[in-house]
Amino acid sequence: MIAKRMITKLEGGSLIRKMFEEGNRLKAIYGADKVFDFSIGNPDLEPPKEVTDALIELASNPTPGMHGYMSNSGYESTRAIIAKKRSEESGLDIKADAVCMTVGAAAAMNDVLHSLLDDGDEVIVLAPYFMEYNNYIDNHGGKVVSVSTDDNFMPDFDAIAAAITAKTKAIIINSPNNPSGVIYSAEQLTKLNELLKAQDHVIQVISDEPYIDLVYDGMEVPAVLKYIDNVVICFSWSKSLSLPGERIGYTLVSPKNEDYADLTGAIVLSNRILGSVNAPAIWQKVIEKSLYAKVDVANYEYRRNLLYGNIIDAGFDSVKPNGALYVFMKTPNGMTDAEFAAVCAKYNLLLVPGASFSRAGYCRLAFCVSEATIKGSRQAFFAIAEELGIAHKAEL
Amino acid sequence: MIAKRMITKLEGGSLIRKMFEEGNRLKAIYGADKVFDFSIGNPDLEPPKEVTDALIELASNPTPGMHGYMSNSGYESTRAIIAKKRSEESGLDIKADAVCMTVGAAAAMNDVLHSLLDDGDEVIVLAPYFMEYNNYIDNHGGKVVSVSTDDNFMPDFDAIAAAITAKTKAIIINSPNNPSGVIYSAEQLTKLNELLKAQDHVIQVISDEPYIDLVYDGMEVPAVLKYIDNVVICFSWSKSLSLPGERIGYTLVSPKNEDYADLTGAIVLSNRILGSVNAPAIWQKVIEKSLYAKVDVANYEYRRNLLYGNIIDAGFDSVKPNGALYVFMKTPNGMTDAEFAAVCAKYNLLLVPGASFSRAGYCRLAFCVSEATIKGSRQAFFAIAEELGIAHKAEL
Repeated sequence: MIAKRMITKLEGGSLIRKMFEEGNRLKAIYGADKVFDFSIGNPDLEPPKEVTDALIELASNPTPGMHGYMSNSGYESTRAIIAKKRSEESGLDIKADAVCMTVGAAAAMNDVLHSLLDDGDEVIVLAPYFMEYNNYIDNHGGKVVSVSTDDNFMPDFDAIAAAITAKTKAIIINSPNNPSGVIYSAEQLTKLNELLKAQDHVIQVISDEPYIDLVYDGMEVPAVLKYIDNVVICFSWSKSLSLPGERIGYTLVSPKNEDYADLTGAIVLSNRILGSVNAPAIWQKVIEKSLYAKVDVANYEYRRNLLYGNIIDAGFDSVKPNGALYVFMKTPNGMTDAEFAAVCAKYNLLLVPGASFSRAGYCRLAFCVSEATIKGSRQAFFAIAEELGIAHKAEL
Repeated sequence: MIAKRMITKLEGGSLIRKMFEEGNRLKAIYGADKVFDFSIGNPDLEPPKEVTDALIELASNPTPGMHGYMSNSGYESTRAIIAKKRSEESGLDIKADAVCMTVGAAAAMNDVLHSLLDDGDEVIVLAPYFMEYNNYIDNHGGKVVSVSTDDNFMPDFDAIAAAITAKTKAIIINSPNNPSGVIYSAEQLTKLNELLKAQDHVIQVISDEPYIDLVYDGMEVPAVLKYIDNVVICFSWSKSLSLPGERIGYTLVSPKNEDYADLTGAIVLSNRILGSVNAPAIWQKVIEKSLYAKVDVANYEYRRNLLYGNIIDAGFDSVKPNGALYVFMKTPNGMTDAEFAAVCAKYNLLLVPGASFSRAGYCRLAFCVSEATIKGSRQAFFAIAEELGIAHKAEL
């Protein structure tokens, strides 16, 4: 009796649940400290003090109407300072009206896709990618067109060009990337812009940027707004301020976007009719007071170093992630990701097969887990390497 | 370049914006106290002290992970006490798993419709109704089938029976009703259940209940769960606790629902993939601490009495609303709602034509406006009646 598409999706969803249950089963048998569960990618740091202080201040000083409705796009004052920050970063003159406050990046993506897609329109995604995009695209009648990136997980422009059709409405980019942690360079963004502008219809770039503040090795993420014209940003504070449960983010349409007026209007309308109505009032105000705050990024970098070190030292191969919260390691000896995951599971080491990100031959490990888990897992990585006949590159 | 359906919807949306702008224009010319704007139905009371106290307590006593992800359906503890409250009201044994916390009732409705509708499925709505339902239904490929209620805005069961087809997937009910303020009786709910159960396929009742706590004249709203089997409740604290900007509500599937297992699962999945992911964490916890609190309902009832009194005393005709925040008055002398609204506008009195609720010949006036506005409007109602040759029923 429920919708047919939901029956299919409910069956698919149970795979992830099985993994979660397997982790719990192993922990019950061996003890939590003997299970190295790298499968779950939830930000685990607490929000910065600016955020918790702002929340106390707002709660303690109630003002009339502070929990009431505002414009569906959110408070003008909140949108204005976000526009100012993004203007500073990009050198563009971004108005508050470019911004629509949303219930996190997931709602932002849905708002944008609902605004853009007619039935059968195509959206290009660059594999490996966060496969929840498939659901977001399907929700609004779109069709996913998956294009593989190169061996360093960078855009393959020939492949993108070959995938473009008259029905291509948008391409989603996600830099720093989940699952690979790579960051696209200014040159790559410029090339993407040139490729898209050379087409005979507008193709929107949807820049999903939840990891933009989680960057390591002194790297800087090039401002997409500087290099791409027809772009809409989808941002969330879930990771930057560790507020994933509170659902606060935004969309921002570039002032250079050829569809600026229609798109900003359609996004606000989508935000209303898809059911968010508006982003939570109090969190908009918290953001206004703590926009320049960040979680303890050095802590994530430290754990990235530990986990990446384990993987490389044990003898495995991986691109070093410069951002986000994951290592996307290559499976050794040409094993499939399912085969490798099965071997790892014997050592109570849990990871997500790359097929879950539309890229077989790799596995994702989240380093937003306890330092003890990462340190404890070192011997497991070494033992797995030994079982597979792989030479270590360092001492245990 | 944006989606075709959005172009149409953006054009429609501008009518409401024009009304809002007209109100502002009149206020600028005549002064805010000389304009009687009954067009906007936003709850204007402050949240009860239990709510603001709970927010301070939570903000001031942060616990690790309190702003982090939880299950997509929300905190088990929050869902459990909601299930307990609804069990007490209905006499049913409702489990926490029946409940999914949502970003208000609008997200709840979208979650339910996304879970139920295949392309072309029909959803019956009972006019007059909140026409945002049209968008919610259209979002998920459904078709709106509008069935008029009787002169007292009560369900017309023959008309409902005649509207049912093999494609009918659901019927939306909304009691207390926006815009009419009527409350369906236990007998009417029982009759609706019998009618639907007599069909050869399951038809779900979606009970949209944002006004269930705003009830006057000592009335009680019969618990839909007692009388209807295949029902899903969509609830929001926007009105009950005056938290419309914070976006907190829930869905609840009746344990008697024939599709209980599929539907509870599909709703949680929809909540995730439509972009809410989960309801805001802190508001779930606030609700847990103030579930039995209510806004000052007597204040709304007082203003209902004032506005309804003005309308009746001036000589107009209206069903008396027993709940919600609106009077849905009949246009006098067989005028169309647009004609009557135009006359009212001459007296700086703004209301919403019934066509905006799919019921011509009526106009909606919200009484969640200041007491001064309602009192000040009395002379305007009397003057309008005089212009139209209508005899007053009381002194000015």
